[in-house]
Amino acid sequence: MEHRFLPDTYYMSIGSHEPVLEVKSGDLIHTVTVDAGGRDRKGNQVAPRGNPQTGPFYVDNALPGDVLAVTLEKIWPNRNHGFCRPKIAPNVLEPGHENNVPSSDIFNFVLDFDTNTASIESPSPALESLTVPIRPMIGCFGVAPDRGQSISTATSGPHGGNMDYRGFEPGTTAYFPVFVEGALFHIGDGHAWQSDGEILGTGIEIPMDVSFTLEIVKDKLIQWPRGQNFEYIFTAGNVRPLDEAIQHATSEMLRWLTQDYGLSQPDANILIGMYVEYDIGNVFDPAYTIICKMPKSKLPESDSSALIHIGI
Amino acid sequence: MEHRFLPDTYYMSIGSHEPVLEVKSGDLIHTVTVDAGGRDRKGNQVAPRGNPQTGPFYVDNALPGDVLAVTLEKIWPNRNHGFCRPKIAPNVLEPGHENNVPSSDIFNFVLDFDTNTASIESPSPALESLTVPIRPMIGCFGVAPDRGQSISTATSGPHGGNMDYRGFEPGTTAYFPVFVEGALFHIGDGHAWQSDGEILGTGIEIPMDVSFTLEIVKDKLIQWPRGQNFEYIFTAGNVRPLDEAIQHATSEMLRWLTQDYGLSQPDANILIGMYVEYDIGNVFDPAYTIICKMPKSKLPESDSSALIHIGI
Amino acid sequence: MEHRFLPDTYYMSIGSHEPVLEVKSGDLIHTVTVDAGGRDRKGNQVAPRGNPQTGPFYVDNALPGDVLAVTLEKIWPNRNHGFCRPKIAPNVLEPGHENNVPSSDIFNFVLDFDTNTASIESPSPALESLTVPIRPMIGCFGVAPDRGQSISTATSGPHGGNMDYRGFEPGTTAYFPVFVEGALFHIGDGHAWQSDGEILGTGIEIPMDVSFTLEIVKDKLIQWPRGQNFEYIFTAGNVRPLDEAIQHATSEMLRWLTQDYGLSQPDANILIGMYVEYDIGNVFDPAYTIICKMPKSKLPESDSSALIHIGI
Amino acid sequence: MEHRFLPDTYYMSIGSHEPVLEVKSGDLIHTVTVDAGGRDRKGNQVAPRGNPQTGPFYVDNALPGDVLAVTLEKIWPNRNHGFCRPKIAPNVLEPGHENNVPSSDIFNFVLDFDTNTASIESPSPALESLTVPIRPMIGCFGVAPDRGQSISTATSGPHGGNMDYRGFEPGTTAYFPVFVEGALFHIGDGHAWQSDGEILGTGIEIPMDVSFTLEIVKDKLIQWPRGQNFEYIFTAGNVRPLDEAIQHATSEMLRWLTQDYGLSQPDANILIGMYVEYDIGNVFDPAYTIICKMPKSKLPESDSSALIHIGI
Repeated sequence: MEHRFLPDTYYMSIGSHEPVLEVKSGDLIHTVTVDAGGRDRKGNQVAPRGNPQTGPFYVDNALPGDVLAVTLEKIWPNRNHGFCRPKIAPNVLEPGHENNVPSSDIFNFVLDFDTNTASIESPSPALESLTVPIRPMIGCFGVAPDRGQSISTATSGPHGGNMDYRGFEPGTTAYFPVFVEGALFHIGDGHAWQSDGEILGTGIEIPMDVSFTLEIVKDKLIQWPRGQNFEYIFTAGNVRPLDEAIQHATSEMLRWLTQDYGLSQPDANILIGMYVEYDIGNVFDPAYTIICKMPKSKLPESDSSALIHIGI
Repeated sequence: MEHRFLPDTYYMSIGSHEPVLEVKSGDLIHTVTVDAGGRDRKGNQVAPRGNPQTGPFYVDNALPGDVLAVTLEKIWPNRNHGFCRPKIAPNVLEPGHENNVPSSDIFNFVLDFDTNTASIESPSPALESLTVPIRPMIGCFGVAPDRGQSISTATSGPHGGNMDYRGFEPGTTAYFPVFVEGALFHIGDGHAWQSDGEILGTGIEIPMDVSFTLEIVKDKLIQWPRGQNFEYIFTAGNVRPLDEAIQHATSEMLRWLTQDYGLSQPDANILIGMYVEYDIGNVFDPAYTIICKMPKSKLPESDSSALIHIGI
Repeated sequence: MEHRFLPDTYYMSIGSHEPVLEVKSGDLIHTVTVDAGGRDRKGNQVAPRGNPQTGPFYVDNALPGDVLAVTLEKIWPNRNHGFCRPKIAPNVLEPGHENNVPSSDIFNFVLDFDTNTASIESPSPALESLTVPIRPMIGCFGVAPDRGQSISTATSGPHGGNMDYRGFEPGTTAYFPVFVEGALFHIGDGHAWQSDGEILGTGIEIPMDVSFTLEIVKDKLIQWPRGQNFEYIFTAGNVRPLDEAIQHATSEMLRWLTQDYGLSQPDANILIGMYVEYDIGNVFDPAYTIICKMPKSKLPESDSSALIHIGI
Repeated sequence: MEHRFLPDTYYMSIGSHEPVLEVKSGDLIHTVTVDAGGRDRKGNQVAPRGNPQTGPFYVDNALPGDVLAVTLEKIWPNRNHGFCRPKIAPNVLEPGHENNVPSSDIFNFVLDFDTNTASIESPSPALESLTVPIRPMIGCFGVAPDRGQSISTATSGPHGGNMDYRGFEPGTTAYFPVFVEGALFHIGDGHAWQSDGEILGTGIEIPMDVSFTLEIVKDKLIQWPRGQNFEYIFTAGNVRPLDEAIQHATSEMLRWLTQDYGLSQPDANILIGMYVEYDIGNVFDPAYTIICKMPKSKLPESDSSALIHIGI
């Protein structure tokens, strides 16, 4: 079933808020997100700043101990200008590294939908040629956490959240552990472009038209977000410091390969050791994100359960 | 000038050891390295285990405050078998993650120089099809550190060392700050193949035939190793934890762009923010390695000094 | 004014829950807390496990930008037995350190109110003489965080939470930044005894009779919890890793000395550098706690605003 | 046997340098150290800046696999003025915390040997009353590391080094693993006073008269420095980040209690969990130091081997 949903409220935390829509497993939802600053397609301020979320969406029959599979079908900017900040986060520079750019500075990008590129509006001479392709992604999405928690959209955790990983783009399926009845899926913080780490605290921040499928996988325990695209399966560790994020991502991948692909632990170790690739998501937030990727072509034949999501 | 050098001693630390050869800036050196376990092309144990180094090579006229540019011209296995370990380092798994593979386990890879691939010698059924291309790289190389230090080849630092970054492959130039007269360059620990992080503590460990050019860039202060290949310039932060390694790598890149490419700090911030890519080198050693990369095609025109090494 | 309050609901997160009692600034509240496992003075299970909280208490006239001063007047066990766990958290042991004690193991302590000591109920021979004084403290308390968040009582942050610092004992005043109207103060997780770090994930867990004063200091910005006792003023950094916790605690102390004690930054630096003492609170939770202490006797004369709380 | 030794060379790294004196196990050595800046009792610059070391001392019959017990018998300033720096290290402040004190600033302390106190030479008005007791300690000492390494006296490790723990004072015995023949003991960097963390990068830096006993304990494997004083046994973890330093210190204490005091692992866990105290040594250097302490009065009866050093 398909749903078209136009939000009028937005949440600044991911939690057990009143659902805005109830859907069935497998349903496709078309909706919109506002930009990280709370402005919509017309540039109107409709929510506070800081990754306001569309949702939550309640999925029938989702219970703690299930997995929510979110397939990102479409993400596309619905406004022709976005913004970025020019200050590298002090936490990714050496302590004491001079960094006098004001945190409040903003520079705008203009999107050209003929060439599908974005350029700085009023560039300094040195940046006149800075043009990036539009490559839309979702910075912040996830499900309500356990213990009645509501967690700020400025950070991330086992429930997802502000991971700012540029692999969360159309064609990717993300998997989240379900902690509460209905899963309560939230989505927001679209970027027209972003590099590794989101070290400016921003990509090109822009409101989006988004379409996604929500599907429940019953009785499937995962501890951290997982995902897959055409080429890779991957896991996300969302925590500070990076040294711990890489532990969660790697352990979750090891669980995936041993529990779902039927590999022995030594075999899984070797396979990961030979082929693992790590990507760095957000290194700006209170929680950092490291992605542990394995190329599908190197994995053993798997039944559908290994990929969690039957549809893929 | 070209040199052919056959080592008979190997050092287990990078430091101010007696030079084995004196060369001039720009000279090309052909030599060999033993494998990480101290075995040579014939499989003979000629050095202790733990990344024994060939060298040090003394470069005329190199003084503290200069930079040593090392261009890796050729790296190729000189033996048809290498080894790996099947245990993922406990430090990249969650505390308490069960990990019963003995640290002493070893599995061998056989290299096929017709197909330029490597395969496990006696694979378990699940790994029978595991075959990787030969993609040779250097795990550990660098220059004598300051203060009369000699630093174990099990770790890394501003002087280079055991960075285990798979980008240190033929065609890459690495730049090291010179701390002592003559620079005293060491090289070893070749891998026929390695994935991100070297989380098994090993790639495919193998002795190599290596050819490299050593060139001195006078009066050029860098604080951490830098490098370039055809597509990228990059910097390396070598330290624990990862959160600090990324700081050094990013700060060093910022210094490079502002000091050598003439960018203002806000412009450099934006350019890095838009295009930076991070790779993870070694996350096994006492010091971890993060690489900060910028695509050359996105950088402003530079004079040769920006690339440090005139020859490239 | 004094209030006596007997709770019948307990929250597993600190957030904007329905207040259980409305009080005025300066009021004294007598209430009880259940143990970390959710059991009350009679041993009845009245809440889930995991630091259930009594409250929240709404303080009239408390607004974001104020400070809530909580003076712990009395904390005393209201049951004669408590529990502890015998497994050191794997995160404070070297990766791979063998640690086969089951996480579910429990050992009980019996309290003797004549000698005011606690002893293991069925000790192994080697621990027969293990007797500790009853030294009651509060493990978890704090105020509702910003952005509509509710944060698990298993962790901590700028809002307080599960800091497990043994300095939170009778006679101590704690200061929390107010994020929401009414402040919404929560309290729970009493320990009859605890050493540094709470590395077993438990002190001697026990329900408590608690009495505390809640007082609002208007228009006073603090960024992290602060406190004072007879001898020290102190600040708390609550975050992972420890390296960042110590940054917040130290920066908050520097802000305190420069903003409230009127010291120049160099003078504050020297004073901290000469006299600072660090304590380690919780190193078990998702967020760790480091305390930065300064002896009052070494501080300049201050007006009451420096100590925040006029009453002390 | 007693030795009086007057150094004329000083090393800036701890390593396998030429010994300055050969002693027997149990010998008492009287010597001097210069201050961290390389100046001697007369204020003459006799070594470079950065914790120059007196030694190394070769101990007969010391072999890898033994332990060197160093009992600090006497440490006392041999000059009446020392120096400190007024800048808190940026690594212990929040990223971006303004901290404009120049790194090169110095302020002097004058020692008064009648009152055994030290005061700032030209204090600002706010610091006029700043007077600290003389409480001498050794910042940097240790033994030559393995693999032929020489490690800068700016940092620390399993071999000891620049730990800057104020517990290394007269009456304390420190234990170091022996890595090379003769142990090769170095000592320097005395402080007349220092608080936790050495967050200014300095205590009150001063040359010292030092007397210490060196004793070899045969065939005793320890992995990190240990120590004891009248009240405590303790272990030191020397590494970045703090999160790992606390792991080494705690694991080493657990090994001590199980291997030498004969406690089962669960019993040792409980005992540590009930009584552990952590101190923070250096948080300024490339490696940080955390001390794990256990009160002797809470430990089981032990034979001398538990305390390692028969003499105590």
